[in-house]
Amino acid sequence: MTEKLRVAVLGAGGRMGQAAVQAVEKAEDLELVAALGRTDPLERLLETEAQVLIELTVPDSSEANVRFAVEHGIHAVVGTTGWGSAKQDSLRALLAEHPEVGVLIAPNFALGSVLASSFAAKAAKYFDSVEIIELHHPHKVDAPSGTALRTAQLIAQARKGLPAAPDSTEKALDGARGASVDGVPVHSVRLAGLYAHQEVLFGSEGEQLSLRHDSFGQASFMPGVLIGVRTVTSRPGLTFGLDGYLDLD
Amino acid sequence: MTEKLRVAVLGAGGRMGQAAVQAVEKAEDLELVAALGRTDPLERLLETEAQVLIELTVPDSSEANVRFAVEHGIHAVVGTTGWGSAKQDSLRALLAEHPEVGVLIAPNFALGSVLASSFAAKAAKYFDSVEIIELHHPHKVDAPSGTALRTAQLIAQARKGLPAAPDSTEKALDGARGASVDGVPVHSVRLAGLYAHQEVLFGSEGEQLSLRHDSFGQASFMPGVLIGVRTVTSRPGLTFGLDGYLDLD
Amino acid sequence: MTEKLRVAVLGAGGRMGQAAVQAVEKAEDLELVAALGRTDPLERLLETEAQVLIELTVPDSSEANVRFAVEHGIHAVVGTTGWGSAKQDSLRALLAEHPEVGVLIAPNFALGSVLASSFAAKAAKYFDSVEIIELHHPHKVDAPSGTALRTAQLIAQARKGLPAAPDSTEKALDGARGASVDGVPVHSVRLAGLYAHQEVLFGSEGEQLSLRHDSFGQASFMPGVLIGVRTVTSRPGLTFGLDGYLDLD
Amino acid sequence: MTEKLRVAVLGAGGRMGQAAVQAVEKAEDLELVAALGRTDPLERLLETEAQVLIELTVPDSSEANVRFAVEHGIHAVVGTTGWGSAKQDSLRALLAEHPEVGVLIAPNFALGSVLASSFAAKAAKYFDSVEIIELHHPHKVDAPSGTALRTAQLIAQARKGLPAAPDSTEKALDGARGASVDGVPVHSVRLAGLYAHQEVLFGSEGEQLSLRHDSFGQASFMPGVLIGVRTVTSRPGLTFGLDGYLDLD
Repeated sequence: MTEKLRVAVLGAGGRMGQAAVQAVEKAEDLELVAALGRTDPLERLLETEAQVLIELTVPDSSEANVRFAVEHGIHAVVGTTGWGSAKQDSLRALLAEHPEVGVLIAPNFALGSVLASSFAAKAAKYFDSVEIIELHHPHKVDAPSGTALRTAQLIAQARKGLPAAPDSTEKALDGARGASVDGVPVHSVRLAGLYAHQEVLFGSEGEQLSLRHDSFGQASFMPGVLIGVRTVTSRPGLTFGLDGYLDLD
Repeated sequence: MTEKLRVAVLGAGGRMGQAAVQAVEKAEDLELVAALGRTDPLERLLETEAQVLIELTVPDSSEANVRFAVEHGIHAVVGTTGWGSAKQDSLRALLAEHPEVGVLIAPNFALGSVLASSFAAKAAKYFDSVEIIELHHPHKVDAPSGTALRTAQLIAQARKGLPAAPDSTEKALDGARGASVDGVPVHSVRLAGLYAHQEVLFGSEGEQLSLRHDSFGQASFMPGVLIGVRTVTSRPGLTFGLDGYLDLD
Repeated sequence: MTEKLRVAVLGAGGRMGQAAVQAVEKAEDLELVAALGRTDPLERLLETEAQVLIELTVPDSSEANVRFAVEHGIHAVVGTTGWGSAKQDSLRALLAEHPEVGVLIAPNFALGSVLASSFAAKAAKYFDSVEIIELHHPHKVDAPSGTALRTAQLIAQARKGLPAAPDSTEKALDGARGASVDGVPVHSVRLAGLYAHQEVLFGSEGEQLSLRHDSFGQASFMPGVLIGVRTVTSRPGLTFGLDGYLDLD
Repeated sequence: MTEKLRVAVLGAGGRMGQAAVQAVEKAEDLELVAALGRTDPLERLLETEAQVLIELTVPDSSEANVRFAVEHGIHAVVGTTGWGSAKQDSLRALLAEHPEVGVLIAPNFALGSVLASSFAAKAAKYFDSVEIIELHHPHKVDAPSGTALRTAQLIAQARKGLPAAPDSTEKALDGARGASVDGVPVHSVRLAGLYAHQEVLFGSEGEQLSLRHDSFGQASFMPGVLIGVRTVTSRPGLTFGLDGYLDLD
């Protein structure tokens, strides 16, 4: 019988953390050995002999937590934001000293969303026009969403050198044509009842391709977290973005 | 055997006009008695004993054409734009002198579009949030579309007195949240391959209602024009908007 | 100051019941006076001076509960299934003896769903083709859904006398063209992640009208329940279907 | 100045052929040197010094046409159906004798459709559930469409070894759950006004990914034909499927 992988969740009191605890408990190949709040001592990771840490805390403490794990040979799957390039570089240097340890930092764990972004980047150069519509619950404070910004940037990069999308608009009300992100129009809808949704529309003469992702709640992140946990042990070094673990080529 | 209704098309050289000529020719209960270009003499309507005029010319000549028809007892179905309230009032006065004649002026003959606008107005007061997305071919010069403006105004009127839709947006790129039309956000997409499409999204806790209309080309206006032709003979006076002829209650 | 309406929930232990309890507690114009399990004595309704009963129990006990309420002058909003025409007739007879009491029995409290069905019935006669796609979570045991069956029947009734939708299908795999419900094709999708969704597609030459409702969870029923509670006190007699309380004409 | 590529269209009288003629004429890097009907002598290809043949005739004559082209050093882009594996093998043998000549045989030239199928195959193993909805004009004789069948087969292949999608359906009307193609449910909608559309729905707990392609008419095939023409000269041997020319990895 295969032994179960020993997993600890840090930030287990938050919404994402609670969902992660449940997801690990339900997975037959994983054993939850610790569910730690943000103030619990990190030594608990050692006492419980965790092999993989799921790090879901806050930007201020995430770096220290992950470095502690790496220094003790524990792999880490990180969903906390705020990992700029300086922090990543520093972590890479640390990982060079621990060549058997793997870390995944993912700004987005929703599998469908990661796939949709990847597909959008691939399709981008084959169409005359592209626009993005993102739709979220009305409690969201920023517009467009971070995912929409990243998707637009990926698309713009893939279209470098191609002619701009045709657009004969002469008179428009302010805002009607959306926000331009690297030349890609992005429209942000805020609607009661929704959670997090995005649609990328591509058009050429006579046809349209639409890539849509709907996230209906926190639960949508868990399949991606589990893929991260199961893969990180065989991927030493730092991987940024869940797509690095997916078989997309 | 019932005699066929005698129909003339004015503006038969334009795209809408050509489609109307074909639609009348295909209809078994209608007879096309004249297909007139914009410079043909209006007397042809009398010589051909037309009973209904389909008027699809240009704003500058539409009023004179319709008044000529009414003065000679010919019903009119009008798709030309530019009929402001002054022209309508003047036409109403003329119709009062010809109480047996009917005129339909319709800014939009697409049945599905007219139905969708009517449904949107009815649904408007039952939801917390509402936004409009309209999508058109990239040759369109105005944004939002006229139909989207009218739909937003109808919705805003139906929501008078209700609380504004919830929206916590604090930092947004210019244009991301669309154009505000009487408080209703409207987003305009311009995409190669598309023709004319509109989606009204309503949301409340736990649910969404979407009303979408797709027009794939000129042909979509013809069923509405034919309903107009068949109904106008029994509706004396001026009717504005095809919904006045539909059974929506 | 207006006094709050005194509301009791029966079946408060079930999922719908719990949601109803929360919804009443949050509503500023309502006061929750009792949250009763299925075995609590009905006399609690009298002791707490409930004015409106929200009945969310099981088919076997619903009739007795509602009759008890009516006999004691308490209005009732009923979400329990199993109210066939015999039970309704018998309830109508009882209500005739209590002419000041109102009862609403609603097979579906999702406002958007009720609106979509009503709109579908109205649009039905204006298009050449119509088909229904309903999509639900994979735990559902019946296909098509009850709502899809009712919608198809409403549409079929509205199209009586019209030609059948065009369909040149000659060779088809079993099931490809869906289930025929009174001549309307209905397609049932079962997909992990979804809750309850329905799309009615209408088509004619050159255009499509789509009416889509998405229910993302139990919460979607509560706005409809609250409309029921607030309206039932001024609608004596039996009303079947939430649409009877909506302003749809 | 680069010389234009010399292109001949065979089957120029058909609908696809006419569209191809127009597309080549509009392309600045291509020169239309011949637009041949099905009965024109193939020697015209030699007289006009065509470099690439666009073959859009009928299954009975396609093979002879393509072999003639290959034997005379002319590349071919083939949209005619009926190229089973025996014909392909035989053509491959001929191409081995003409190692500088390229042939593309594509059952589907709609770029968006080819991309969507490729993306669907890649996404297939990451979700619990998958179903296909294809929607076409009502003149179509087969259901499901050929594209839907191929997409379902690609998906089924990618999911080999994975558990079946969850489905608790116990009582269903005949056809409600669609046709099963290698275990993937496929639903075929036939609606006046539509042309050719397909949606692949993937679902897991809390999320949905939808890949939709809309073809609004013949024009949608031309960008793919042009990619074929421009690429075939540098791809000796036989390529089956436009995806072989796309940069999808």
